[in-house]
Amino acid sequence: MTEPSHFLREIAEQPAVFERLLSEGKESVERAAAAIREFAPEWVLIAARGSSDNAARYGQYLLGAHNRLGVGLAVPSLLSLYGAAPNMKRALVIGISQSGQSPDIVGVLEEAKRQGALTLALTNDPGSPLAGASRCTIPLLAGEEKAVAATKTYTAELFALAMLSTALSGNAQHQAELGATPELMRRAIQQNRDLSAPAREFADAQKFVVLGRGFNYATAFEVALKIKETSYLIAEPYSVADLLHGPVAMIDRDFPVILVAPSGETLRDVPKLLDLLSDRGARVVGISDRDDVLSRTQARIRLPANMPEWLSPIVAVGPGQLWAGALATAHGQNPDKPRGLSKVTLTT
Amino acid sequence: MTEPSHFLREIAEQPAVFERLLSEGKESVERAAAAIREFAPEWVLIAARGSSDNAARYGQYLLGAHNRLGVGLAVPSLLSLYGAAPNMKRALVIGISQSGQSPDIVGVLEEAKRQGALTLALTNDPGSPLAGASRCTIPLLAGEEKAVAATKTYTAELFALAMLSTALSGNAQHQAELGATPELMRRAIQQNRDLSAPAREFADAQKFVVLGRGFNYATAFEVALKIKETSYLIAEPYSVADLLHGPVAMIDRDFPVILVAPSGETLRDVPKLLDLLSDRGARVVGISDRDDVLSRTQARIRLPANMPEWLSPIVAVGPGQLWAGALATAHGQNPDKPRGLSKVTLTT
Repeated sequence: MTEPSHFLREIAEQPAVFERLLSEGKESVERAAAAIREFAPEWVLIAARGSSDNAARYGQYLLGAHNRLGVGLAVPSLLSLYGAAPNMKRALVIGISQSGQSPDIVGVLEEAKRQGALTLALTNDPGSPLAGASRCTIPLLAGEEKAVAATKTYTAELFALAMLSTALSGNAQHQAELGATPELMRRAIQQNRDLSAPAREFADAQKFVVLGRGFNYATAFEVALKIKETSYLIAEPYSVADLLHGPVAMIDRDFPVILVAPSGETLRDVPKLLDLLSDRGARVVGISDRDDVLSRTQARIRLPANMPEWLSPIVAVGPGQLWAGALATAHGQNPDKPRGLSKVTLTT
Repeated sequence: MTEPSHFLREIAEQPAVFERLLSEGKESVERAAAAIREFAPEWVLIAARGSSDNAARYGQYLLGAHNRLGVGLAVPSLLSLYGAAPNMKRALVIGISQSGQSPDIVGVLEEAKRQGALTLALTNDPGSPLAGASRCTIPLLAGEEKAVAATKTYTAELFALAMLSTALSGNAQHQAELGATPELMRRAIQQNRDLSAPAREFADAQKFVVLGRGFNYATAFEVALKIKETSYLIAEPYSVADLLHGPVAMIDRDFPVILVAPSGETLRDVPKLLDLLSDRGARVVGISDRDDVLSRTQARIRLPANMPEWLSPIVAVGPGQLWAGALATAHGQNPDKPRGLSKVTLTT
């Protein structure tokens, strides 16, 4: 490309967005945390679509692992199609939407508020209908996002959830780790700024399976979504566990697999998985900080060392976005101009 | 194939399994419903993997629409990977597993019971560890399932959930509709018993997108899973709403799309969707009872008329299973012997 695309420029902006959230977003996060502590929800329901639904997936692991909150992902069409609203009285109901415009997500929050649930919006537009329907709002502070495929608003959603979880737990180590994340993201983007050579090796690939587990289940979904949005290829996300429950049958010789495998608890199944992929002759793109993983993959996307596992989805997706962009270019596409997509989708 | 495969035989057994559940399963369903009424859960968490996770998706819509229960799908690896259990004290926690053996699903139920949650197992083996970890059990009564790709145990899970929902609501019309379902399934299977001709038209297809919405979101997932398990093709399920939020970009000329569109509320978006698919030149396989839908698709899988929408996932998946089997044959595969799959996957 002759000039940097919106997509690439917005990827590069991410560390600065995190820094802005840490400083300017602190107060709204603490207000939300205080309201949650007071309400003491029995469970959490998150309503979101697209990239924001992948942020919700991260929230599901994070609020479960660090805050003992049981989190369900809402099915917004229950209300919009069937006019049926489940009982949400004792729930914290979180709506996540970059634009804050999706009528079905706004509808869930309005109904939740009516029932007496505690409602919280995560949105890049604090003047949006979603924010209007919610008791608390955490603004994403990401600035206008021009590329149709979301990048900085996705990671801002993750980062805001990480700040919220930490404000709820009061864990000082987690707070320090949050503070180190912008710099880790800067490094992750810097050292993977040119993935054109490995991407060209996959210029023939028409399909990908993207694997991740635990905290990085969300990363697998989001990397797959970026590939679909910018390269128009099939890219299906799986947790390693679900893959072994059936779909592993489809992986044959040269099948392209992207494996998101940063250090952490999920690594314990990775050697066995790499054996299986190698037996089947799959072509693997590794996204990892570990030499023992990357030495066994055909393409290598190196993550910075010393990332805490719980924050690794925020950092690991950066190189994943860059991979999607490089792949789009290798496939002769312009990641700024996806076919048939508009920035705001008004699903009803 | 020279002799009927386990896969085809077990598809044909489904109406009889439903009849057995209606008679012999009634008592255990009513016991579970009584325990739920007494416990009065604030929310529901369902733990499942593979096909059973698709049954959980149906449960999410059904219990939400007919019983006002908010349902989340558990992330079992939260406990197995990170040793973290969310607060489930006021939840009904349902484990769904054909074998009842998956250690991570059993782990969720054990922890839920320890916390004082109400626990319920849906399993084909009432002597399994899952049943042992649960206060109530609804046996699936499906008989041994020999094919690796689940068919009759999947629909038995759906049917058991439909019986449970009806026992909870006490809705007499729904009860009558349940009683008519075995015969509808018999017809659906009978009139689609030979899909070899249309399947041969897709012998070159290496990828599918499977679309469904609302109650039949689960059907899209399950039909996609059957195709992956028996034909080793890529088949990605989408709700129509999520497709429009991004991945629609990948649908180009001749892209094979399976559209699950029985009569009901979800039909209202279908004409617009068919326009869009037609503009992009997609090849569409329609699964519907509607002439106005089937007349616009390249391959037609006709469902029986007069299916209530809430029960249509139980019936519509039958022809979907037959389609997967016919596709496998067209691709030179044996649906009884998927590569790299075993019947019980012991995910930890």
